[in-house]
Amino acid sequence: MTTTEDQTSDGAPTLARVRRLNEHVGETVRVQGWLANRRSSGKLLFLELRDGSGTVQAVAHKKAIGDELFAELEGLPQESSLEVDGLVKADERSPTGVELSVTGARVVGRAEPYPITKAVQEDSVDFLMKHRHLWLRSSKQVAKLRVRARIIKSIRDFFDGRDFVCLDAPIFTPSACEGTSTLFEVDYFGDPAYLTQSGQLYAEAGAMALGRVYTFGPTFRAEKSKTRRHLTEFWMCEPEMAFATLDDVMDLAEGLLCTIVSDVLADCAPELNVLERDLAPLQKIRAPFPRMSYDEAVALLNEKGHPFEWGGDLGAPDETFLTQLFDKPLLLHRYPHGVKAFYMKRDPDDDRVALCVDVLAPEGYGEIVGGSERADDLDYLLEQIKKHDLPQEAFEWYLDLRRYGTVPHGGFGLGLERTVAWVCGTHHIRECIPFPRMLYKIYP
Amino acid sequence: MTTTEDQTSDGAPTLARVRRLNEHVGETVRVQGWLANRRSSGKLLFLELRDGSGTVQAVAHKKAIGDELFAELEGLPQESSLEVDGLVKADERSPTGVELSVTGARVVGRAEPYPITKAVQEDSVDFLMKHRHLWLRSSKQVAKLRVRARIIKSIRDFFDGRDFVCLDAPIFTPSACEGTSTLFEVDYFGDPAYLTQSGQLYAEAGAMALGRVYTFGPTFRAEKSKTRRHLTEFWMCEPEMAFATLDDVMDLAEGLLCTIVSDVLADCAPELNVLERDLAPLQKIRAPFPRMSYDEAVALLNEKGHPFEWGGDLGAPDETFLTQLFDKPLLLHRYPHGVKAFYMKRDPDDDRVALCVDVLAPEGYGEIVGGSERADDLDYLLEQIKKHDLPQEAFEWYLDLRRYGTVPHGGFGLGLERTVAWVCGTHHIRECIPFPRMLYKIYP
Repeated sequence: MTTTEDQTSDGAPTLARVRRLNEHVGETVRVQGWLANRRSSGKLLFLELRDGSGTVQAVAHKKAIGDELFAELEGLPQESSLEVDGLVKADERSPTGVELSVTGARVVGRAEPYPITKAVQEDSVDFLMKHRHLWLRSSKQVAKLRVRARIIKSIRDFFDGRDFVCLDAPIFTPSACEGTSTLFEVDYFGDPAYLTQSGQLYAEAGAMALGRVYTFGPTFRAEKSKTRRHLTEFWMCEPEMAFATLDDVMDLAEGLLCTIVSDVLADCAPELNVLERDLAPLQKIRAPFPRMSYDEAVALLNEKGHPFEWGGDLGAPDETFLTQLFDKPLLLHRYPHGVKAFYMKRDPDDDRVALCVDVLAPEGYGEIVGGSERADDLDYLLEQIKKHDLPQEAFEWYLDLRRYGTVPHGGFGLGLERTVAWVCGTHHIRECIPFPRMLYKIYP
Repeated sequence: MTTTEDQTSDGAPTLARVRRLNEHVGETVRVQGWLANRRSSGKLLFLELRDGSGTVQAVAHKKAIGDELFAELEGLPQESSLEVDGLVKADERSPTGVELSVTGARVVGRAEPYPITKAVQEDSVDFLMKHRHLWLRSSKQVAKLRVRARIIKSIRDFFDGRDFVCLDAPIFTPSACEGTSTLFEVDYFGDPAYLTQSGQLYAEAGAMALGRVYTFGPTFRAEKSKTRRHLTEFWMCEPEMAFATLDDVMDLAEGLLCTIVSDVLADCAPELNVLERDLAPLQKIRAPFPRMSYDEAVALLNEKGHPFEWGGDLGAPDETFLTQLFDKPLLLHRYPHGVKAFYMKRDPDDDRVALCVDVLAPEGYGEIVGGSERADDLDYLLEQIKKHDLPQEAFEWYLDLRRYGTVPHGGFGLGLERTVAWVCGTHHIRECIPFPRMLYKIYP
């Protein structure tokens, strides 16, 4: 089996991945990868070799590898695939701490002239998006995808370690969670069905069966907005807890975000370095986070010269203004119930507001989490469904959760791509998912 | 924060989950859950209490808790929610090793008469499917979902620990991987789009960027078949490796299946017990697995009196017959290329067959994995796309992977629900996903 570090069968050097080369200083190894860049100076050739785990400089002397191979490598187009054997040498100037002194090489697949050049990268997002299958190979994109994968693992480990059961919500749904205007419709064997916008209602059913659950999967919104914070297809993690209150929901979100950031700081130093991410703001992400009611936020906005009237939802500019006052995520709770979903519980101490919370990421990144305590009273929910003009029949199963053993419960949804964007310091979330889907954009 | 084991704020007993009660023998704890069952004998009341992590018997003496509470609990409908305080006592007759001697209780949500009774459970799958949101609470369903979650974790840890990067493939796709007849079509802002049948082609792009990747998400097939092995929406994990051959693919699948089974055996003993799963066949799942070519399988089938002609795909009866000859998963490789997908590599030693492998689970469960080495030659792929009458334009991005640094590579897809069904010993895969979607079935 091809494990990470392998003895090859024909007596060839040990296979090694670039990220682990520093464990092989003084050894001759074989690296399998692609040519990211190349420059030569007469009798010396500098090959920048990438293998998906990192990039290393391989130095080839004409004398050592012979004229023929030297010429082949000297003319090799970018992104050609090759196997390089070489001695691993410590090199303090290198970001990985090593370089490779080439002893041999074999070209596996000679590439046609590669369409993505440095000039293109800086110029044309449209071009890069159409070539996303190749753009993925660029070092910054590799770094973002590796951070994304680390965050996914961090989220799952966090919940698995706290007795939450992973419960996959269905993608095909007969009913809409938050209105039908932004739903994708599918022809389901002659009947209409919708792609899920949120697994929450199903997670609630799961919490009544399993106590604590989380969904983690793709969700869909057919929004006609073209902003840096919207995708039509995005991943969301939605934990849900039985016997829990809004305070529990806020504690859980705070704990999760601290864990994500500390895991990425611990394990993704090379990626954050490639991304030129300023680490100082991330190092400040420790509990406790500031908690503020909507009431307090409105007062603060007006006091700081950013006029805002009580009752409306916060827009992106309001969120940005608020997050710039704090260097940690801001837990903003108890919004007016009118701007929030029908299933949220009212605050028994203030009937104007819902027991909800949004978490706004600092540095202007804005909302990454939205959650609440859920209404646990059957009559209240029936009334809300009527008021929001939702089809009661489609929600009968959801209402059953209140008919049979209702309990206080709550949870939240965390948007994966927005979280990755914040942690990576990436402006647009289209680079935080392997193959972004946006308005009119679906290729490749 | 409500962590698993908590001191409650009002000086009440420690909160404990049923699964961990055996760590609290001799202590008074509080369990939050639902009434799964109840019987009384005059002055004694036996409450079967479930909290999603397990079920425990709570014994209430009328003398100890008073007439009023005793009467309330005695009349409490199934699935009512409650908090029970009690002393944890060791009890060898109990499957969890403990029982609870009730010192107090509080009803949280009194249930209406519960629709799912023991009689219904045995009778009517249709009724249970329509009440899936409640059926989830039954002990066997809880067990299956917990095993499913453990298998998901096992799969992810397996790949994360072997330098694979989790790469989420898109759900919306412009092109079909294996023909268009079984695709769900979506109106994507006026253009047709399809729901993915497989993330493989995207995983291949990912492998060229990251070396090793895996996708793990929902996939869709609009098949009009009503069998115990089909869902319209199912989860699939698809690893893909650059610089890999068919042998590497087989080794990887073997390693993964061994890990899954040993993780479940180690961590899910209570669940397997509830499911009455025979453990002996699972304990035999250790490497190496038998490997057999299609040629050899055809010869074996005919030799054993099960006539089969070379050239066709194996049907479910053929698979069942074969798997009954072995007590481990069978790696069946090198099928005729005509019955396999266009992107598979031909065997250079036998042009009639593809370098592919199906893994058939024992005990008659059949195919759970399908994989191959991929065709890495541009001209061969162009020819195949023409031959299969596929629109070349839609595959241009995929062909680019061969234009720019092609390498030998391969991977497989593992069907999650089929794997869960096999490990749990469950006949129908509809019980191996929280909310199954099948032909004409989409509620709740």
